[in-house]
Order: sequence, then C-alpha cells, then structure tokens
Amino acid sequence: MLDPLFKPRAVAIVGASTKELSIGNVIIKNLQRFGYTGKIYPIHPSAPEVRGLKAYKSLAEVPGDVDLAHIIIPSKQVPQIIEECGQKGIRAAIINSAGFSELGAEGAQLQAAFLANAKKYGVRIFGPNCQGIINTDPALNAYCNFTFTFPGPGAISVVALSGGVGAVIMQALFDLGVGMRMYASNGNASDISISEILRYWGKDAGCRAIILYTEGFANPKEFLEVAREVAALKPVLAMKAGRTEQGAKAASSHTGSLAGVDIATELIFEKTGILAFNDEEDLVRAAMAFATQPIPAGNRVGIITNTGGPAVIATDVFGASGLDVPKLSEQTIQRLKGTQLPEAALENPIDVVATAGGTQFRAAMDALLDEAGVDSIFINFVTAPFTDTHAVAREIAIVSALGRKPIVCNFMTDLTQERYQETRRILKEGGVPCYANPTAAAKALVALTKYGLIRRRDIGQPEPFPNIDSAKTASILLKAKAVGRKVLSAREVYSILEAYGIPVAPWRVVETIEQAISAGEAIGFPVVVKVDSADLDHKSDAGGVAINLRDGGMLRSAVEDMQARLGGSRPLNFLVQKFLPGGRELIVGASVSQRLGHLVMFGLGGIYVEALKDVAFKIAPVTRVEAKEMLSSIKTSALLDGLRGEKGVDKAAVVRVIQQVSCLLTDHPEIQEMDLNPVMAFEDGCFAVDGRIKIL
Amino acid sequence: MLDPLFKPRAVAIVGASTKELSIGNVIIKNLQRFGYTGKIYPIHPSAPEVRGLKAYKSLAEVPGDVDLAHIIIPSKQVPQIIEECGQKGIRAAIINSAGFSELGAEGAQLQAAFLANAKKYGVRIFGPNCQGIINTDPALNAYCNFTFTFPGPGAISVVALSGGVGAVIMQALFDLGVGMRMYASNGNASDISISEILRYWGKDAGCRAIILYTEGFANPKEFLEVAREVAALKPVLAMKAGRTEQGAKAASSHTGSLAGVDIATELIFEKTGILAFNDEEDLVRAAMAFATQPIPAGNRVGIITNTGGPAVIATDVFGASGLDVPKLSEQTIQRLKGTQLPEAALENPIDVVATAGGTQFRAAMDALLDEAGVDSIFINFVTAPFTDTHAVAREIAIVSALGRKPIVCNFMTDLTQERYQETRRILKEGGVPCYANPTAAAKALVALTKYGLIRRRDIGQPEPFPNIDSAKTASILLKAKAVGRKVLSAREVYSILEAYGIPVAPWRVVETIEQAISAGEAIGFPVVVKVDSADLDHKSDAGGVAINLRDGGMLRSAVEDMQARLGGSRPLNFLVQKFLPGGRELIVGASVSQRLGHLVMFGLGGIYVEALKDVAFKIAPVTRVEAKEMLSSIKTSALLDGLRGEKGVDKAAVVRVIQQVSCLLTDHPEIQEMDLNPVMAFEDGCFAVDGRIKIL
Repeated sequence: MLDPLFKPRAVAIVGASTKELSIGNVIIKNLQRFGYTGKIYPIHPSAPEVRGLKAYKSLAEVPGDVDLAHIIIPSKQVPQIIEECGQKGIRAAIINSAGFSELGAEGAQLQAAFLANAKKYGVRIFGPNCQGIINTDPALNAYCNFTFTFPGPGAISVVALSGGVGAVIMQALFDLGVGMRMYASNGNASDISISEILRYWGKDAGCRAIILYTEGFANPKEFLEVAREVAALKPVLAMKAGRTEQGAKAASSHTGSLAGVDIATELIFEKTGILAFNDEEDLVRAAMAFATQPIPAGNRVGIITNTGGPAVIATDVFGASGLDVPKLSEQTIQRLKGTQLPEAALENPIDVVATAGGTQFRAAMDALLDEAGVDSIFINFVTAPFTDTHAVAREIAIVSALGRKPIVCNFMTDLTQERYQETRRILKEGGVPCYANPTAAAKALVALTKYGLIRRRDIGQPEPFPNIDSAKTASILLKAKAVGRKVLSAREVYSILEAYGIPVAPWRVVETIEQAISAGEAIGFPVVVKVDSADLDHKSDAGGVAINLRDGGMLRSAVEDMQARLGGSRPLNFLVQKFLPGGRELIVGASVSQRLGHLVMFGLGGIYVEALKDVAFKIAPVTRVEAKEMLSSIKTSALLDGLRGEKGVDKAAVVRVIQQVSCLLTDHPEIQEMDLNPVMAFEDGCFAVDGRIKIL
Repeated sequence: MLDPLFKPRAVAIVGASTKELSIGNVIIKNLQRFGYTGKIYPIHPSAPEVRGLKAYKSLAEVPGDVDLAHIIIPSKQVPQIIEECGQKGIRAAIINSAGFSELGAEGAQLQAAFLANAKKYGVRIFGPNCQGIINTDPALNAYCNFTFTFPGPGAISVVALSGGVGAVIMQALFDLGVGMRMYASNGNASDISISEILRYWGKDAGCRAIILYTEGFANPKEFLEVAREVAALKPVLAMKAGRTEQGAKAASSHTGSLAGVDIATELIFEKTGILAFNDEEDLVRAAMAFATQPIPAGNRVGIITNTGGPAVIATDVFGASGLDVPKLSEQTIQRLKGTQLPEAALENPIDVVATAGGTQFRAAMDALLDEAGVDSIFINFVTAPFTDTHAVAREIAIVSALGRKPIVCNFMTDLTQERYQETRRILKEGGVPCYANPTAAAKALVALTKYGLIRRRDIGQPEPFPNIDSAKTASILLKAKAVGRKVLSAREVYSILEAYGIPVAPWRVVETIEQAISAGEAIGFPVVVKVDSADLDHKSDAGGVAINLRDGGMLRSAVEDMQARLGGSRPLNFLVQKFLPGGRELIVGASVSQRLGHLVMFGLGGIYVEALKDVAFKIAPVTRVEAKEMLSSIKTSALLDGLRGEKGVDKAAVVRVIQQVSCLLTDHPEIQEMDLNPVMAFEDGCFAVDGRIKIL
C-alpha cells in the first residue's frame, strides 16, 4: 500500500532550510502554497522555525505521528536518517538527495545501506535522486515536490522516471487547463517502482487515465504483468525515450541483431494494451480528450466545419492514421438539408459555413449522433467575428456532455480577446477537448480511436499443442550443456523441432559417404547436403552446402569435395535433407531480451531480412492472434498472399510454427537464440530447412 | 507589381455596412483598429456614414484616388462594379464575395465576366471568394481582411489559399509572439496567383521567410519556376493538404498508378528547394526559428540541458531525423571542466544540472560556439525555482544575438507566474526561439538543419547527350500518330530507345518462323521471344512470352505455339531478343503529370514495385544528381550495392538511363507514358529488355 506516500497525514522535511531558494525551503513553501491539510514538521539542526513553522532538531523530537519523510540532506547521512525514520515509525520516505547508484559503486553502496535500514523497519523508499509526489485531492493537497507547477484537481495521474519530463507533462496539462489526480517522479526507483505505482493507481477510483514516461524498465517482466492488469482497467498513455539509442546488443544471429531494448518496450506496450506515443505533446493532448470523452466504437469520423482548409488538414491526418471519413447516409443528408444554411456543403466534412450559428452546429451534431455510420465527431470551429460564438460553444458543450459519441474540437480563435475567452470557457466547462489547430485536434481523436481498437483487440491465450515431447528436448539440452556446448548440432536441432511438431524437411545426419547415399535414397532425391558443424555459422559462404543433388553421384562428389576442403583428415558429419525448391523463404527466430524473456521474430528470409529489415517481433508466449498479426504486419505481407501469377503460402501453417516455437521457448527458457532460416513455405504447408539453436 | 494590393494608399469598401457583425462593417473596423494610415472610403447606397466615416453612393463619387477596392456585394453585381473600378482608375480589387467558379457553371460565367472587365482597365483581381491581405508595415498598417487576429510587425509573410488555414497560421504565429510581414489569402485566385505573390515577396527586403499553404496549384509549371527563383532568395516553408487524397489517376501503367497529384507537389517542393511540412504547427514553430536564427552549417547538434529526460527526448528526435549529437572534442571537455559545477556531465548532451546559473550556461554555450564539431546549439532550460532564471535567460539571449551558430531553446516553465514571464521576456527580446517541450524545440532545429541541407544541395543542370537522333524519334512518333496508334510497337519502342542511346538487349522483330530462327542465330542463343502486339499489355500472363530458348528448335516450337494460341490464322509479329539472365530487375518509367510535365520513376522491378511500391519519382528534366538521389532514396537501395555474396549493379549506367529517358521526354513531350520494365542491371552495364511507350 502506498497510502503513506500518496496520502500522508503528516510530512517531516529532513533538511529543511531557511534559505528562500534552497530545495529544503521550496518544498515547505510548495506544501504551504498548495494548501496541504496535513501537518508539516521541518527538521533543522538549529533554527527554531522554518517558514513560520516550528522546527525540530530531529525526527525523534517530533511530537506526533509522521507518515512521510522528505529527505534533502547529503547522501552520506541518508542511511542513518532512514534508521531514524524507522525508529520513529515513519512508513515512507521521499529521498530527493542525489549521490547514489547514479554515481557509481560508492553511491550504490550508500543506496544498499539505506535500503537495508528501510527493510528492517518496513520504511518504503521513493527515490533517491528524485522529485517527489503530488496529490491534488482537495481534502489533502499534498505537494511533496520542488517543482513549480500547481495543477488543479483532475482525473489524470502522471508517473515519470525523469523529473524533467514529468515537469514538462505536468506543465503541459496545466497549460491546457486539464486537472491532475496524482503525480510521481521516482528517479533511481530503488524501492517503489513504476509498476507498483501503476498498480496503486489502477485501484484509485478518482484516476480515469494514467500518463507514463519512462526510459526503460528495471524489471520489464514485472511491468508487463502489472501493465496488463492496469491497462485493462483504464487507459494508460505511455512514452519511452531512448527509442533511437544504439542500445541493441551486437548478437550474431539475425534475431539478436534486430531486436533491441527499444523494440522490447514497444512490444510490452503493444502486448499489454498501452497506447504508445513518440511525442510528449501528442500524449498530453490526447490525455485531455481521454479525461472527458468516451472511447469511439469504431474508426469512422464525422466532421463538422465552418471553414474549408482545416477540414482538409484533419481529413489528411485521419487518412494517414487509418481513420475513415465516410459518406453520410441519405437519411442524414436529408435531415441536414432541412437544418443548414443554403450555402452549406452537406457531405462529410459537413461545411456549415462561416456564418453558421448555434442552431446549425447543433443540428449538424445531432444528425451525426444519430448517423449509424459515424463513431466520433470532429469539429472545426473558427470564431468568425460576425457570429454568436458563445451560442455555438454552448451547443457543442451540451452535445459533449451527452457522452453519446466522443467529440474533439479544433477551436481557432484569438484568446487575447475577452469575447473569445468567454467562448472558450463555455467549451472548457462543458468538458470539450479543444485544440488550437486541426492537426493537433485530429491527432487527439486518432489517439482515442486507436485506444478503442486496442481495447477491442483480444490476443487470447497461448495454445497448448498435443503430442509435444518436452522431456526429450530437455534431455537433448541437458546433454549439450553437460559437455559445455552452446550451439546445438543439426541432429539436436532437428530432433527438438520434431519434438515440438515443427515440420522439417526429411533429414538424416550421416558420417560416411555410404551413409549419405543411402540416406539420399531413403529420403528421395533431389537432396541437399550440409556440413553439420557448429564452427561454420555461415555454411553456404564456406562452401559447406550443396543443393539440388539429383542422384547418388552428385551427392557423392559433393560430400567428397566438402570433406576434402573443410574436413581434411578430420571426419565430418553431414546433414542430408530433402531439397524443397520453389517455396517462399521465411525466417522464424527468437532471442532472449534481458529480464523480459524471449522475443519471437518473423519475416521474409534472404534479401528481405537483410536489405529491408522487414521483420515483426512479439514477446513470448505468442498467441494465435499475435502470430497472425506478425504475418500481416510486415511490409512485404503481400508476398505471403501471392502476387500476380504466384501462389500464396499456407499462412495457417506458418502461424502454427510461430506458436510452436513460442511454446518451445516457454518450456525451455535456457534457449538463448534460435533461428529457423529459412522456413520454406508452400501453398500447402511449410518446412524448416535450416535451424540453429544456442543455449546458455 | 502588386503594390496597389499590398500597399494601398486608399481603400474603398464596396458593400460597406452599418451592421456591427456584417463583413462590410468588420473590414472597416479592422482597418481602423489596425491603425491604417491611408484613406478609407465606405461605399453605401444610402447611409451618410459608416463607422464614423463619410460614405459615398458610388465609386465615382469618391473625391480622391483609390488604389484598392474591397468588394463584399452579391456576386451578380460584381462584373458591373469591376467596370466602375476601371473607370475610377482603381488598380486592384479584393473580391470577398463568394458565388463564382466554386459554385459551377453559372458562377464561372460571372467570374469570366468580371475578369474581362478587369482586363479592359488593367484592374488586378485578388479572389474572389477570399479573405484579403494584411500588411503590418507600421507606416501603412493595412488590414484588408475580415479575420480577427492582429499581428505585430515582423519578417515572416504568409500566403494561404484557404482562409481558414491562413487564419490558423496567423494566429499560431501570434500566439508564439512572432511578428508577421504580409498576409494573403486569395481564395479562387482568378487572377493574382500564389506564384505572383511569391515573386513579389521574393523582392520584399523586409520579408525574411515565407510560409505557404496550398491545396494544389492551378499552374504547377509556373509555380515550379517561380518557387525555384524565390526559394533561392529566402526560406520558403510550405504545406500542402490533400496528401492522402485518393486523387491519383487510375492509369494502367505502373508509373501512372503510383504517381498521384500529391507526389507531384512534394516533388515540386523538393526540386525547388522548398522546405515541406505535414503539420501546420511544426511549420509555424519552425518559422519562428527562421525569423531570428542563422542556418546551421551542418547536422551536428550540441545540447546543453539542466534536466536529464528532456535531453533524451531531444536526442531521439535528432536521431530519428538524421541529425547527429556528436562526442565533444577533448579540448571542449577540458574547457567545460574548468567552468561547470562538479555534478555536471561533460559530454553531449552537456548536463549543467538543475542548479546551474547564468555563468555555467554561458560557459557551456561559449564552449559549443568554439567547438568545431558542432553546428547548432539546443538548450533545455527548465526554470528551477532555486536558480536565478533571469541571469540564465540573459546569457542565452546574448549568445543568440551573436548569430554565430543557431540556437533554439526548450523553455520549460509556468508562464502564469510573473517571475517566469519576465524570464521569457528576456529570451524573446533576445530573439531566442522558445518552445514549451523538447520535441517541439528539437523539431524546429531539425527544420533549420534540413533547410541548410537543401540550400547546400545543388542539383545541377540536365546533361546533354551526344549522338541522339531526335529526328528519327520524331518521325516514328509522327507515323504512329498518323495512323491513330497510341501504343507503340516493339520495333518502334526499341528504335526510339536506341536513338536516345539507351542500351537494349539485342533484338529483331520478325514475322515468320524462319526469320525468327535466323534472328536467333544472328543475336546468339539463348533468346527470348515475345508476341509484338499492343493488344497484349500483360504478355506473359497471356502466354505471349517464352524465355531462355537455347536453340533453334526451342525457338521454333515457342513461336509455333504462340502463333497457334494467340494468332490463329492472323499472322503475328514476334520480337526475338537476347536472353540476359541473372541481373537485377529494375524499372524506369515516366508519365505525364497534369499541367506540370513528366514525372520520371525508378525502382526495383517485379515483386518490389508490386508488393512494396518502393519507387522514387522526380520531375523531368532529371539531372545527374537527381538520378543518383533516385537510386539512393528507395528503401531497397541496398540491393543495388549487392548483399552478402551478390554483386552490386552498375549504378552509373542506371543513372545514365534515367537521364536519357528524361532527355527523351523533354524532346518529345507527346509521350504520355513510358515503362522500361524490366531494365536488367549487371555489375557492368544495364539493358532495357522490355519497353512500352504510349503517346497522345
């Protein structure tokens, strides 16, 4: 429970200062200015009072109970102070002080020291190296933070690892006139994590939507679980910075080299139903719409405008984002005919023209509310000086309050003029999300609509596969591990694939030319032969692969040649495999993402993966819905369906392979990397024809 | 000369009204309120005065000279009024009234009528169905417009076809505190075009940058010429709406179906050096930076920040936009060491930390000004309550005023607090472009930097090709036209290609099996044979193509088969051509874009163009630089360089073919569509192996 942190009845400021501009003074000033209803106890070694409040020499001297300590003293003294917090029975501490793990080993030691003391007494730690929290509940007014923005009460809570970005978001909400519920910026996050805060806010009935800013997760797996739980309860709008970071580990396999830290975060957002943003301004503006508007039931927008160009711009934004601006039904057009000015354009966008008043706007909105082919309403409202702009605003506010369909408004005006300030006040008090230009307004409606899609999407559960031989796989992995081998042999790889039901081209591993030839005969020519060696990662480059061997003679000379060139006197193992020409080359891979589990990758093999990096990732376990999404989300997905003259591939079979790979990884997390490259896909079925598995 | 429009010494309002909210009243009110220094003559049939000004019954009654008439009367009366304008010697008229070509045939007739009268007297027409103009020159203060925003003087001029978007842009500049030079929104643009206004502003010394909003060009060719001329003089920042419009003509060739109206506008912007935007807010914010800052000499940004997260976000924006945040030189780091607080991070971004004051900010900026590895400075400045924010602002303003390197500032503060308003005032008066969040600020610097790249790019001139046989081509085209043939035969196509030096696979057109076989022998097997028929656009689908015919027997049976299946008793023509296996399939095409000329297209052929639509376009004539850009700008350009184990293609040869095609189109504009698909490209050379030309 984070109540002592977010709902403190008494706060002690350890490091209170009498100097106006110091943090130890600003925090008290902020609490006072915000009208904190609890008790404030400044702790100061000598001053009798700070900012008019009686000061105490130590926590022990404080007469009453304290829920929360605000710690601003040098880092070296922090472990001792946490000990004192524990002794005083304080249940939470915000450590503003820096000088801990962010500064290297010595700081990390200090951090470990205060954490040990905190654990001893059950003191929960927020920070260190952080800003603090805000709770705008008017019964409490807790501003435990040194920032300068004073938000009004509202329904949106904000958590940001970075205090700077947290401040930007808080200020942007403030500038938009949007209230805030709670705020938290927890810096080093040594104890209380973003996940824990998220879970707490998930249960906060006063919180309607959550804004999250992060630069990465200490425990992505925990976050994944919590985020899924919370995102099912209320909208979580998130942004992660560091998206262009060259942070992807330089792994040797395709999967490893394409899946970076950043992809993982995006995938977490996607899997859990979090709405992701790349632009903090877009995020905050979207939040304003989430604070008052319902979620659109679909992607069809009806536009009402009293000026042409901005409607074109909005339509562009919708079009580029997959939203539809559909034709109106004949019934709606007839209805509009009776209510609009003669110059009005009765299509979608509905141009009510600049001289339209409240009556025309209202009639147009009512028509769209009743139009079954429209899920949301976008309004361009320029305050033409020759119209009663207040009347228009009143009608928009009334329709917004109905809550039947979401409304956003591009409100184009000059707010330095008193008349238009009043028009805006009417819109705002009616809960109408207003933006100053068409793109901004349209993007907010796009966000609402996309969130609707996210909420209606059900990825389902991972499927069980019958007849899987997990024990056999475990024993193969165990044996390889026992001899310290990290890259599995072809025999091992194909045995594992077969154990998981993954279709493979018929194969034998052989040691002699005679065995090779009888394998070829058993499998049926044409065949492929490959040197089975972990040393040769790129076998074909080394001349360790020969394809389309049509008879025993060709097979014999290929094997002889490889043995001579690559083996010398050392006898090689060879994989003899059915040659399957003419299919579409696919790649299914997987790699471990640090502290998260496996990422599964799918794409078109060969030049597509190399030149286009056209691949899709999902976090394992991958459900059938997700596997299908992987197939449809690559840029080259049209190739799977087959173009003019070509046949499409058996997508159901490919989807099954992705799920089987996911199942294998879930059962055997010691697999670090795995590539089926290529999987040859045909109109009817698909077969892994080359595979690689690397273990811990 | 547009002086009578933009610098009127006297304005007559035809349709002046005594009603407060009517446009005929608002326009006079705006002129008065803006402090217009010229004379205002209301024209009213009966009222003795309007808004305190003496009114006249007709233009003829006006005692003095009139430069500009503002016309707000019903459309039917406009032709007569223009006649009267001419008689009065009025040189320009703004026609606000609607009801002309935008309403169909009847309106178009009225428009033609007033244009005829205007021409007779040399009256220049602005509009109709438009807003008007603004000139903020304090000596004039001309506000000939019915909008409600009152901009201060400045260096940015704004032209917008759509009045609504013009108003949004004007208001956004106003909200940012950025002054404006002139404004024009010309609606139907029946006479004075955006091109003419652009040229006029190009010569206006007081105009430092131009903002342009359009939804298309009536005369794109004229615009292309003017824009190139003006964009060479000053930055032109442009946005075109309708970018997602399904307006691409449904042409049958690849080129036709991929090149829409929208691509053409983008290409015009690119070719002329106009900086294009998709978001009006980004555009206006960038304009603020252009108004005061120099253009960066390169793409390397130095970041100074007093808070961590926003610097990460800015770095993301730079990274995603191709800007670099490079390591600082050892010398700069040493210099910083001596001047920064001990907690500061002396890398790039330079984190001066939240407690940094003016001294630290100034020292960091000075270090970056002298750092040769940095072209521009990005500042994150959060107004920490415990610092002297005015001092920081003063130092930033001083460095900005030096004009040595461009500076933009993400200024994070609460502007409802007086203290920070003062900090902002210091920055503003110093000409520092300030934004309220890191992404917005970073995007403005990206725009400045991209513009620098545009200015430094020299596309050069189209090259002349020696030994071109234009006369032969003209005669072929003439002959085809004479018999009403629009699709050229294979013989004609290949003859034209050869006349322009475009390498083609050796070919013969034959009529009999015997001719085919001797052609095969002359060319050398293997060969391809194709039915030469304009009726068979997709020959291979119809079975009209046979490849890799290794000897006379194979050729004979292929020809016999086609003749039987596709010709029956009607004798067919056949193209026999050298078979060139193993190259990379490319496509070079062209199509006519309405009123602009030819668009040339390049891409990888086959599935790439079909599944990925991965093609590049340029407006003809295409220079060598532009042709190279086409090769490098496709997503699959890595395939041209060759991937692991594959050879790259002869890019110089491909570049030459693109230029030769462009030359052919310039010489023979009657060519409507043309496709070389594929051009087979090899390590050494490339050859068109299938071609199609369609004429008017």
